[in-house]
Amino acid sequence: MNENSRKKTNLKTNAGNFFEDFRIGQHLRHASPRTITVGDVAVHTALYGSRFALQSSDAFARSIGYPCAPVDDWLVFHVVFGKTVPDVSLNAIANLGYADCRFLAPVYPGDTIAAASEVIGLRENASGESGLVFVRSSGTNDKGVLVLEYVRWVMVRKRENGRTETPPHVPRMPPAVETHLLGDACPPIAAGAYDFVLSGSAARFDDYAVGEKIDHVDGVTVEEAEHQLAARLYQNPARIHFNQWVEAQGRFGRRLIYGGHVISTARALSFNGLANAFHIAAVNGGRHVAPLFAGQTVFAWSEVIGKATLPGRNDVGALRLRTVGTRDYPCDAFPDKAGDEDHPAVILELDYWALIPR
Amino acid sequence: MNENSRKKTNLKTNAGNFFEDFRIGQHLRHASPRTITVGDVAVHTALYGSRFALQSSDAFARSIGYPCAPVDDWLVFHVVFGKTVPDVSLNAIANLGYADCRFLAPVYPGDTIAAASEVIGLRENASGESGLVFVRSSGTNDKGVLVLEYVRWVMVRKRENGRTETPPHVPRMPPAVETHLLGDACPPIAAGAYDFVLSGSAARFDDYAVGEKIDHVDGVTVEEAEHQLAARLYQNPARIHFNQWVEAQGRFGRRLIYGGHVISTARALSFNGLANAFHIAAVNGGRHVAPLFAGQTVFAWSEVIGKATLPGRNDVGALRLRTVGTRDYPCDAFPDKAGDEDHPAVILELDYWALIPR
Amino acid sequence: MNENSRKKTNLKTNAGNFFEDFRIGQHLRHASPRTITVGDVAVHTALYGSRFALQSSDAFARSIGYPCAPVDDWLVFHVVFGKTVPDVSLNAIANLGYADCRFLAPVYPGDTIAAASEVIGLRENASGESGLVFVRSSGTNDKGVLVLEYVRWVMVRKRENGRTETPPHVPRMPPAVETHLLGDACPPIAAGAYDFVLSGSAARFDDYAVGEKIDHVDGVTVEEAEHQLAARLYQNPARIHFNQWVEAQGRFGRRLIYGGHVISTARALSFNGLANAFHIAAVNGGRHVAPLFAGQTVFAWSEVIGKATLPGRNDVGALRLRTVGTRDYPCDAFPDKAGDEDHPAVILELDYWALIPR
Repeated sequence: MNENSRKKTNLKTNAGNFFEDFRIGQHLRHASPRTITVGDVAVHTALYGSRFALQSSDAFARSIGYPCAPVDDWLVFHVVFGKTVPDVSLNAIANLGYADCRFLAPVYPGDTIAAASEVIGLRENASGESGLVFVRSSGTNDKGVLVLEYVRWVMVRKRENGRTETPPHVPRMPPAVETHLLGDACPPIAAGAYDFVLSGSAARFDDYAVGEKIDHVDGVTVEEAEHQLAARLYQNPARIHFNQWVEAQGRFGRRLIYGGHVISTARALSFNGLANAFHIAAVNGGRHVAPLFAGQTVFAWSEVIGKATLPGRNDVGALRLRTVGTRDYPCDAFPDKAGDEDHPAVILELDYWALIPR
Repeated sequence: MNENSRKKTNLKTNAGNFFEDFRIGQHLRHASPRTITVGDVAVHTALYGSRFALQSSDAFARSIGYPCAPVDDWLVFHVVFGKTVPDVSLNAIANLGYADCRFLAPVYPGDTIAAASEVIGLRENASGESGLVFVRSSGTNDKGVLVLEYVRWVMVRKRENGRTETPPHVPRMPPAVETHLLGDACPPIAAGAYDFVLSGSAARFDDYAVGEKIDHVDGVTVEEAEHQLAARLYQNPARIHFNQWVEAQGRFGRRLIYGGHVISTARALSFNGLANAFHIAAVNGGRHVAPLFAGQTVFAWSEVIGKATLPGRNDVGALRLRTVGTRDYPCDAFPDKAGDEDHPAVILELDYWALIPR
Repeated sequence: MNENSRKKTNLKTNAGNFFEDFRIGQHLRHASPRTITVGDVAVHTALYGSRFALQSSDAFARSIGYPCAPVDDWLVFHVVFGKTVPDVSLNAIANLGYADCRFLAPVYPGDTIAAASEVIGLRENASGESGLVFVRSSGTNDKGVLVLEYVRWVMVRKRENGRTETPPHVPRMPPAVETHLLGDACPPIAAGAYDFVLSGSAARFDDYAVGEKIDHVDGVTVEEAEHQLAARLYQNPARIHFNQWVEAQGRFGRRLIYGGHVISTARALSFNGLANAFHIAAVNGGRHVAPLFAGQTVFAWSEVIGKATLPGRNDVGALRLRTVGTRDYPCDAFPDKAGDEDHPAVILELDYWALIPR
């Protein structure tokens, strides 16, 4: 049964928005606010095995100036992202990219996060069958504090094929979040208190050089149950992750793994080499270069593409990192684009600022 | 080794009760009381991806009159159910049905639930090889408050084949829980405070009509690991869910998925169309029509089969819903019985009262 | 790329220690201290379905003298073990055994555990390609209290083949933890308060006889996702559990299941027959006799090989148990060694003291 007639039969179910439903400046308040708990943190740990000390230990967190272990930055992101899906990307063909993502305030277990989005760009495709939708999404806690903001753009199906007169409006994306905007989610770190043995590495800000490449060595084979548990933990209902009965006849024949699952897997792998990059302060850009399916093995490597001190503070500095995730392809030779052509094994590219003790 | 000789060899292991072991009026206090925590809530969210705002957000819950987000009603049910299994259904051939189930008090993270059952019916089968056992089970919290009661009946093996003189006693089951008995687990809902954007739907009590059918659209493919994690979360040790080495030679050749996993999956799917049916107040009847196995995809649809206002309150009303779950069969055409003959794709029928804002 | 050149290229990643890197008396403070929460407890319950009442219910725990439900003893062990892996066994060929393991103080949700190890033995193999490394590892909580100590030994690869002059030093392991050392993690149990119905069994200390064998009956088929979730919950990054891309060419062609997953599975199965053995006080010895792989079914049986009263207390006694885990082999006939030859189906042997009410 096609989407149109289903929609007429029963207006109570959510058919999602099609390209024609979006307007520049439209505000969307998303459903299902979520209290993030130590339970969510534990499931996230079981999904990725993250070993970063700050998020793992209340004692370590308190020793350096946090009230307790903050929630993993990417877990916060996925929870917010999941809430945008019913309104933004239910009819998406592809999740094309992220930019201008800032982690603005720490999130602690017990905080409730609500999500909202503003439509900031639209561009119909020449085919008239789909179009790009750009949204700026935000997560706000129950005290009204903005904890996260980011821009993403998706290719969304049109309800009716055929070109329309929609004037294209593509927002200008900063190539990177400016360094003076980094660090709002990181309290002052007690200088001598950061334990470099408990953190897992002695390498700090000065030990990384721009141009340095780090192979994160380990690989993780992803299972169907795992990525489904993840997407559901994030309350992300996108059908393409769950419905093998439909997907068997779909583009890939398989359930597509939520791209955020790849991001968190790569982040956990990056502990091996970047253990003291304890906080993701901002994401400058991100792209799911190719899909991942269950049974495939994720590897990752990173390059230090920038370094910055933060104005007015000398407890932490920022490393600009480019992390590349691959499937079924170890990264000892740092597989990467050749010119504009993506490497066939690359599934993720992420350009972000992470904070590290100085 | 047959059950009898194992039982004689080692009386410390639980061989479970056989039909002959039950007596009308017998009281069973079940083992393994359980403190339900935010950890259990998080694992349940990862298993089903439930998006109901009340159970998802402490802030939303408080805004409408709860002290914090209550534990999902079905999670409470499964925890109680799991405790009855070692005493009631270890030797069951089939879990045949539920009735007269009432959610009597809200359950919050930190509450400890203990379970007990009373045998209220027995009827030996003509074959003399098994019999129906009817129990009324209850969950009580650590303050002694009854939080849940329900009746279920199972086909239980006999220890020794051959007809006995057991007089049949089949309890009368009310066709539905009377509406004046609904709502004890739902505090007064602050009228203007319920946010219909955060809840995910604008549809309230008056927007549903008796006879209306709702296809919940989405399907979820269940994996072996998922249903095992679920049954274990509920401390349900029924072998048929876990032991592929034995089940490979069994009736189905596969591990049977705990029926409650299907119930919670269908409930989560029903958010799409029934997002404001925020509380399951009672279950009038339920039947696992056919088994589900890993690799199959669950779909669901619901029909509004009744509506009722609740005496003395106008904050919420009750929708009587009949939710049908299928395997590998989308529900746009509302697959259902033909007369008395079950539809071959239907795996679950549930008749329940859910509360919804007026 | 071989380990050596990778290590020179990038000193920030952890190549792990090789046999030559260890010294007798060397102290290792391990990374990633961990606050164990009710979230971790819930995931552990979902992984194993443990029904022991003490760890399941705050109310039951308080009734017998604990402030609340303590964290499962094996969960504490796995969390500590996971932290030792990056420093001790990243280059291990085999995890050969455990001994002299004592649970020294109860651990409660909210406690932060840090791990450390001391190298207490080294013995190069005749082949010159590997050697035995013996460590005494400990877990300490954030108040500085020692909660766990144990010895384990692993076969670790050498960086460079060829015999060296390393003098062998093999520590003497006590055959069992002496009974006067048992019980520090178990507060005085309120004599009449222990509810033998809620606990799941009426069998107490006097009901077990030395020589008695108990078949735990049930079997659990393990899935890839489950053992990966477990190892990651424990922050155990050992590659052999996760990387099917590499392991497909490895010794087994499969991902090896973390031995601790087998231990916890066997412990949960042992509830059937040993429900009142509510606390693991010490492990005298343990051996992963053979590997386990996903799709295989774990069964278990136990023998009471000793009994002891504890000096100065008569609330609990100690049972010395030998629990044997098998794969794809029910234990009604108590499969066991024939002389020195292991039974082909046995995967685990565990010799431990458990406390039980008197």
